[in-house]
Amino acid sequence: MVDRPITRRRLLGAAGAGALLAGVPAGALARRTVRHADVVVVGAGFAGLSAARELVRSGRSVVVLEARHRVGGRALNAELGGGVISERGATFIGPTQNRIRRLAKEVGVGTFPTYDEGDDVYLHDGKRSTYSDRGPTGTAPPDLEILGDIATAVYKIDQMARQVPVGSPWKASKAAEWDAQTLKDFVLANTDGNPRFIRLLEVVTRAAVGAEPQDVSLLWTVNFIAASGDEHHAGTFERNFNTRGGAQQTRFRGGSQRVAKLVARELGDRIVLGSPARRITQLPHGVLVSSDAAVVHAKRAIVAIPPVLSAEIVYEPALPASREDLLARFPQGTLTKVTAVYDRPFWRDKGLTGTAVCLDPPLGATFDDSPEDGSVGIVFGFVGGAAARSFNRRPPSERRAVALEGFSKLFGSEGLHPTRYLESNWRKQKWTRGCPLAYTGPGTLTKFGPALRKPVGRIHWAGTETSVFWSGYMDGAVRSGERAAREVLRRL
Amino acid sequence: MVDRPITRRRLLGAAGAGALLAGVPAGALARRTVRHADVVVVGAGFAGLSAARELVRSGRSVVVLEARHRVGGRALNAELGGGVISERGATFIGPTQNRIRRLAKEVGVGTFPTYDEGDDVYLHDGKRSTYSDRGPTGTAPPDLEILGDIATAVYKIDQMARQVPVGSPWKASKAAEWDAQTLKDFVLANTDGNPRFIRLLEVVTRAAVGAEPQDVSLLWTVNFIAASGDEHHAGTFERNFNTRGGAQQTRFRGGSQRVAKLVARELGDRIVLGSPARRITQLPHGVLVSSDAAVVHAKRAIVAIPPVLSAEIVYEPALPASREDLLARFPQGTLTKVTAVYDRPFWRDKGLTGTAVCLDPPLGATFDDSPEDGSVGIVFGFVGGAAARSFNRRPPSERRAVALEGFSKLFGSEGLHPTRYLESNWRKQKWTRGCPLAYTGPGTLTKFGPALRKPVGRIHWAGTETSVFWSGYMDGAVRSGERAAREVLRRL
Repeated sequence: MVDRPITRRRLLGAAGAGALLAGVPAGALARRTVRHADVVVVGAGFAGLSAARELVRSGRSVVVLEARHRVGGRALNAELGGGVISERGATFIGPTQNRIRRLAKEVGVGTFPTYDEGDDVYLHDGKRSTYSDRGPTGTAPPDLEILGDIATAVYKIDQMARQVPVGSPWKASKAAEWDAQTLKDFVLANTDGNPRFIRLLEVVTRAAVGAEPQDVSLLWTVNFIAASGDEHHAGTFERNFNTRGGAQQTRFRGGSQRVAKLVARELGDRIVLGSPARRITQLPHGVLVSSDAAVVHAKRAIVAIPPVLSAEIVYEPALPASREDLLARFPQGTLTKVTAVYDRPFWRDKGLTGTAVCLDPPLGATFDDSPEDGSVGIVFGFVGGAAARSFNRRPPSERRAVALEGFSKLFGSEGLHPTRYLESNWRKQKWTRGCPLAYTGPGTLTKFGPALRKPVGRIHWAGTETSVFWSGYMDGAVRSGERAAREVLRRL
Repeated sequence: MVDRPITRRRLLGAAGAGALLAGVPAGALARRTVRHADVVVVGAGFAGLSAARELVRSGRSVVVLEARHRVGGRALNAELGGGVISERGATFIGPTQNRIRRLAKEVGVGTFPTYDEGDDVYLHDGKRSTYSDRGPTGTAPPDLEILGDIATAVYKIDQMARQVPVGSPWKASKAAEWDAQTLKDFVLANTDGNPRFIRLLEVVTRAAVGAEPQDVSLLWTVNFIAASGDEHHAGTFERNFNTRGGAQQTRFRGGSQRVAKLVARELGDRIVLGSPARRITQLPHGVLVSSDAAVVHAKRAIVAIPPVLSAEIVYEPALPASREDLLARFPQGTLTKVTAVYDRPFWRDKGLTGTAVCLDPPLGATFDDSPEDGSVGIVFGFVGGAAARSFNRRPPSERRAVALEGFSKLFGSEGLHPTRYLESNWRKQKWTRGCPLAYTGPGTLTKFGPALRKPVGRIHWAGTETSVFWSGYMDGAVRSGERAAREVLRRL
């Protein structure tokens, strides 16, 4: 056997004189920039950008390492020409999402209301109906056969959400009981379990989590609902899922990624693009983050990327078992966003909002994504969880055909003739690995949840999944970055 | 923002003239060996060693990259002096484990029967009883209050195991139903659910999987049982858990790791130790595996490491979503092996085998691990799952004290006075991440199971978790390596 010799440099390890360069092949430095800063931030999504911005405002030096050749993470504008954009990822904000709102305001991005005039569409088994979300059932479709199940489930989940210490659900008095079951277990045990209601539950879970009701822990779900509020407003199912008064209420002028781009402009050369962090070495008085294009030596690090990606970084020393265990059970959802662009928002002419609840796959929920002036019509649908996995396996021409067929069934035959069709399979994005967020199945939060935000030596954790409020949303990302920055500032 | 320039070398990527060195900093090559071979194998546990050995016997050139400074993976001998060893990981083999048996025979390692003369011990709530495993209940403790539950659960699981296409449980006719529940769900629904029986179920699951009954999918469990056989013998619960006639029947002279060391001796300089694989790049006609000490260019690669570690390698291009999704939901068990060494195997003098079933934590199951000649007495206990997590958090002196207290309650006060106490927390082993094997919770196998063994381009997958038979055992590791070697040989 050939054994790699244990040289003096390696024995010295992080503590010795050669520490700064330990693990970094000498020749590599000739090609990689070496930078020094108070804090190194990994990831230039909303979490990493917000952390960096807070630190810079407090007079600290920062380097942000970003794997992609762009900023914004799960927020991405596709430019359609003529100033029209389509948001390929995060799109909406709503009441109590005050951090992303403030950030947007500070960088000068305005907002406008999501189009919500007219009726929503409900489709199941080829049967189509329309209804007003101002009606007695709100955004829930007035499907009499399953309304009892809907009302029961929403009521009970909202009640449970009040009993969870939001952000630390493992401390709930019923944590063990709730983390031992899935959302589906709970619903089957607490409603009549009408098969059509279960399909609705699937549509909602696929759009919100990119997973199936049997994949997600009830405790995780209840905390997700509890998180759709702020310090002054308890989270509710309605605030999460509604357009009016809910998380789909408002959009950004120029698209959500514009906020990230403007923050990045402020940060300037502090951001290194195209440079995934590969290794984080903790030194006695600092950290060394080795990325493809730069090696950064800093006092502390903030890792602001999805859990599954943070697990792929090499940590020296290794992470504590509880954090590794959490990361080994914290997958990203599977969500594909399909979007059709039309000459005009033709559904509006028919008195429709563009919002639909569709129980016939692949489309689940749809929303109007047209520009503020309605100069063109853009509608998108969520294809998530199991529906996304079978959809993603079909050839591109078939995917386009079934998506457009879905839009046409919901809004009329004009849906078959878009000027453009776009598809964003976030599951295939190497530097995201799935949308909208990471979730946990049963048994994970009660065992390993406390490792979610707990710093490991000089490494701090951000990312929307770590946020107490609006975890999984842009607002949660901003909150997590600001919180991590405060953690670091207290220790610098 | 500073964007890493997209140079010609990077654009050429894997397809261009600079392909061999793509992604490898030029200077690094001055320090890292570049090697060429037909096949590169990642991991020198039983799986990787067996794969390499098969390939060499077929006249192919091989390089094996191993992260540790030793071979054997989850098999490790601790030398206690005077030729006495204690196996810190894999220990036993049993009937139908013909591949590890053949391998051992070929490299000249003999076997001897696990000590099994006398009675086993059963302890619950401080109450101790002894019983013969030749009695009417076999290895199950004759606890009348829970015998009905035990018999029912074992009978039903054995019946289900016959209905699973072993190794491909996602193809079972009831796959969806069984993968939607945990082992605990099943047991609660199909037995009287006596609380003491549930504690026994926990002890068994912790020792066998390093997890809790509510963590593992029923489908995964049933396949695990089905796998404890071979082409001619259906797997059964009994063959998995028994000493006599089961997987604990036989031991290796000189310890299990000796087999691995002797295979490694045959392979000689083909093995590079201390060199974890970091990146696997697929080229048009080969693969490039970049590790800490060597860069290997080969026609094909066999990755023979635990799932969670294989997920930490950087793949170019990225792995297919289904394999990434599987790896994101395939955690290692949590198992600590605690061992006490005594002047003599004092329990044998009392007519005891050293085997015990202990419902009072932290110890679960125990076994005699003394050398063949009984010159000293060695007994070990499994501390797994939730019991291991709380145990591992206690300070070392406390851990030692409660473990020895456990041995003394089972075998007598002599247990308090060992000459030596050893502890192996495999969860903390950076290059294993948990023992005895990786498992899946509900919903994973039916969605992503088919990715388990499916080659990705020129990358083939080995490791005991990929084995059809004896998955999770040394035998499964050997089988997986030999199977991967055959896959590669067909394509070279």
